[in-house]
Amino acid sequence: MSDAETFAVVLFSGTDDKLQSAATLSVGAAVMGRPVQIFLQYWALDAFRADRITKDHGVSPEGGPEGAAAIASRNSPHWSDLLRQAAEVGEVHIHACADSMELLGIAPEDLDPLVEGVWGVASFFGAADGSVTFI
Amino acid sequence: MSDAETFAVVLFSGTDDKLQSAATLSVGAAVMGRPVQIFLQYWALDAFRADRITKDHGVSPEGGPEGAAAIASRNSPHWSDLLRQAAEVGEVHIHACADSMELLGIAPEDLDPLVEGVWGVASFFGAADGSVTFI
Amino acid sequence: MSDAETFAVVLFSGTDDKLQSAATLSVGAAVMGRPVQIFLQYWALDAFRADRITKDHGVSPEGGPEGAAAIASRNSPHWSDLLRQAAEVGEVHIHACADSMELLGIAPEDLDPLVEGVWGVASFFGAADGSVTFI
Repeated sequence: MSDAETFAVVLFSGTDDKLQSAATLSVGAAVMGRPVQIFLQYWALDAFRADRITKDHGVSPEGGPEGAAAIASRNSPHWSDLLRQAAEVGEVHIHACADSMELLGIAPEDLDPLVEGVWGVASFFGAADGSVTFI
Repeated sequence: MSDAETFAVVLFSGTDDKLQSAATLSVGAAVMGRPVQIFLQYWALDAFRADRITKDHGVSPEGGPEGAAAIASRNSPHWSDLLRQAAEVGEVHIHACADSMELLGIAPEDLDPLVEGVWGVASFFGAADGSVTFI
Repeated sequence: MSDAETFAVVLFSGTDDKLQSAATLSVGAAVMGRPVQIFLQYWALDAFRADRITKDHGVSPEGGPEGAAAIASRNSPHWSDLLRQAAEVGEVHIHACADSMELLGIAPEDLDPLVEGVWGVASFFGAADGSVTFI
């Protein structure tokens, strides 16, 4: 691989376990010198609303109460802070999917400043280097 | 990236939110001139049965009743229509996973005509250009 | 694609349907001559504990009771056996994510021998050839 290959993520899921995983992978990619492109759809987009980004978004059903408790008591930084860190060590871009914005009735001003803007799917594919990771 | 790099998707999930996302991404890839290869497993394969493809397949648990309502009232085309559109603007191939067919007791004649045929995993990897997106 | 391109999987989900799918894809990739790198996070890591790897891990909510019954009555090998087979026909490496080990309070000796060791995210990205499949 070229170190410069973009880590392109369609971030669809809005539970804290998957968001934490996506943020951890983004930090890792940024540290390795890879540009990161994150495209927010559906429940992940909803989780990036400014008024609820740090609230409890639950975990995947398979995590169960024990898993949710483990995540709630973690010592590691919140996924939104990890994404800010990733943007400090590397090139990280986060865009909202236009279709999902309309579907969920979200306006650009509703979103956390981590989100740079709104894109159509074609713009995201144009910025990706070929491979896409769906989370 | 080469514009010709295949967008290879293992479509595993059978809820309408993920199927809609997969179809939207497939349209975007096709518009960008990328061949699309979709390999249906498990619950996605079940959703492509001819007798239920346009029925309500629910949404991911995290969507909740509010999310399900938003998707049910959408104005955008159904994911099966989006996939038909993608096949009109570009090269889109959809195959069923042989293992999943046997596991779920599905025969080829049970499937919607969108599905071209039944493949083993090796055929799918042969048609993919390296990267695989799992949805 | 080059036959030698690594199939790099972040294995996050811990239900038997997704683990079975990941194992089946890994066998397919190994048969095609591709190295396989699996990085265990969260609920998938939990499922690889030696004391529960062959126990019932449930299925995705969308599978429902009917889907769970179909998987429970399958004739195909368990996903842990498929992964052992993949390692016999090709190059398959499985590592645990250090962050998830700490989060879930898992020690290396708790894990099945399929797991070679513990890695940070950067090591995984270093071993991947660029593209990452998240399951």
